[in-house]
Amino acid sequence: MTEKKFLTLSTSYTTINGAEIKQPVVAYEEYGNPDGPVVLLCHGGLSNQHAADITDVDPAPGWWDKLVGSGNIFDTDKFRILSLNALGSIAGTSSAITIDPDTGKPYGKNFPYITMEDMARFTKQALEDLGVEKVFWAAGLSMGSLLLLNLAVLFPDFVGAITPVATSAYMTSGGIAIHNVFINSIQNTPGWQSGKSDSFDVRNAVMVMSQMSKVYYTHYSLYEKMTEGMTDQLAKEKQLSDYLMAGMEAYADGHDANCVIACLRACNSYNLANGFSSLDEALGRLNMPALVINVDTDPEFPPHYGRELVDGINAHYPGLAEHVIIHSINGHLGCVLEGEQLKAAMEPFKVGLLQSI
Amino acid sequence: MTEKKFLTLSTSYTTINGAEIKQPVVAYEEYGNPDGPVVLLCHGGLSNQHAADITDVDPAPGWWDKLVGSGNIFDTDKFRILSLNALGSIAGTSSAITIDPDTGKPYGKNFPYITMEDMARFTKQALEDLGVEKVFWAAGLSMGSLLLLNLAVLFPDFVGAITPVATSAYMTSGGIAIHNVFINSIQNTPGWQSGKSDSFDVRNAVMVMSQMSKVYYTHYSLYEKMTEGMTDQLAKEKQLSDYLMAGMEAYADGHDANCVIACLRACNSYNLANGFSSLDEALGRLNMPALVINVDTDPEFPPHYGRELVDGINAHYPGLAEHVIIHSINGHLGCVLEGEQLKAAMEPFKVGLLQSI
Repeated sequence: MTEKKFLTLSTSYTTINGAEIKQPVVAYEEYGNPDGPVVLLCHGGLSNQHAADITDVDPAPGWWDKLVGSGNIFDTDKFRILSLNALGSIAGTSSAITIDPDTGKPYGKNFPYITMEDMARFTKQALEDLGVEKVFWAAGLSMGSLLLLNLAVLFPDFVGAITPVATSAYMTSGGIAIHNVFINSIQNTPGWQSGKSDSFDVRNAVMVMSQMSKVYYTHYSLYEKMTEGMTDQLAKEKQLSDYLMAGMEAYADGHDANCVIACLRACNSYNLANGFSSLDEALGRLNMPALVINVDTDPEFPPHYGRELVDGINAHYPGLAEHVIIHSINGHLGCVLEGEQLKAAMEPFKVGLLQSI
Repeated sequence: MTEKKFLTLSTSYTTINGAEIKQPVVAYEEYGNPDGPVVLLCHGGLSNQHAADITDVDPAPGWWDKLVGSGNIFDTDKFRILSLNALGSIAGTSSAITIDPDTGKPYGKNFPYITMEDMARFTKQALEDLGVEKVFWAAGLSMGSLLLLNLAVLFPDFVGAITPVATSAYMTSGGIAIHNVFINSIQNTPGWQSGKSDSFDVRNAVMVMSQMSKVYYTHYSLYEKMTEGMTDQLAKEKQLSDYLMAGMEAYADGHDANCVIACLRACNSYNLANGFSSLDEALGRLNMPALVINVDTDPEFPPHYGRELVDGINAHYPGLAEHVIIHSINGHLGCVLEGEQLKAAMEPFKVGLLQSI
């Protein structure tokens, strides 16, 4: 059953840089068999924990609807499936928009800088408070894939298997570049600079970011498909402009500039080598089965990054990690939209995991 | 000698849609042998007519410095080289920032909507006023490649040979999409909507566009190269953010929002089929040698568009058009930066043209 849940953690969370987040809250969804092995699903950076719409409780589509359900990859008959909103993200977990217990007001800009390692450590703490002794299988996409990889490197005994999708062992430079365009476009507004992160111009910057995301996180062939058979250039211009503008107000309503920046900067910070002497040392800790998936047209996580990750793991444990590249006209968003290909890639991996129980 | 020149045209220019631009001005540069065959160079959409810095008169680098000079591809000993600022663009030719003779004030938002066909027809009129009876060879990149192709289709007897670089027979849908992100980001500002196109927020939108351009018009491998050997994510983040922010104020000083929109919309309008019964009919008019060049990593003009153009010409004149794909880590900007590869591709084409004189 899809249900929005909240849990106040048993202790404060202290960030890598020493900031204390008091009475931290995790927002999450839970599906499936409460007594089954735990599957952890991890969402993308501008998304939230609504991985699946498997009942009528929340009719919004989930990002991995095609993969969650009875008899599906993330089988609600077999698994206890937990999908947690990441630390700093907007959908209920402690973030810039939640209340700072010290002031009684939302943190806003005072929410501490967090790294991907913070997102991973916070996730571990939250899962323990949710009674999870071990994650049977962690899967996720984009930012979520980085989070679960960091979780597995920090706590290899806590994670039984991993499926990062649209991923890398460290944040890609192309991804940092586009994130910084988004961050700069928000931070250069007068509203932001005068401390009004809810001002019109900051909201406008978030809407521009939404349109920029639509282009960057897809692939030009999507636009070719959207205008297939059209020959009138003005009609194409209108069609594509309407598509870009569609849903912008709702997008701005659903995204807070501080939360956006927190997630983008956490992604920028991501490197599995952080805290270890080398990336090789970190990858040597990934002693669990790994199915690594990239999308061929993804400019943020081009497949060679996934290949490097898989080769790095297999250098320690030959054959333990597998790399699948899926083909998509959707660029980065292939990690959400190519459900059938994801299913085909994950099915034998799941069967192997279940046989090992 | 590099010299900034201006010419008031002998008659008004009337746009395809019937608007009259009175006392139109063309700004241009001229290099080389004034008695030689005419080479026309056509600039990109956010660029200007400064194709080459071949003397000390203007020390700014030209966009095709590597190709212009004594003994070079665009040989200043042999050719009369003309580089015209396109209609509607910012660098001196009639545009939103030039004076409307009827009001004595800059046109601003009242400058008429222009299409690529207008840019081409205006170029023809300007060249005639410059005493040009025939263009021996027209070459240009990005928007300039569209302009020269449109010129050649409209006036095939006026153009002897063409080398469009980063190009297509019609504006690509991916290109329209990114153009519309830029246009929307400007037009959604309160400044724009209240008629103040020089307001702070419009200027800010132009700066954001500059950063988006840096990412969109390059390729992720450029950012990989810029951070090669770096392992500290915060250092990468700073390096890339600094790069994106570099030159933004100067960029905003050098670009007017109305002129930007005029050029982007003219590109959006581009389709060689416009005014003809079909694209095939239009391509059948391209009865001159054509060297068509695309960049393998260009998301705005992926090579298959150049291939379609070449195949379309060769269907009428087998072997008359040739397609070269150059390899670059610079994405779209490879059309400026890959000077050596452009030279290698253009040299035999030039030799062939000179032999035909």
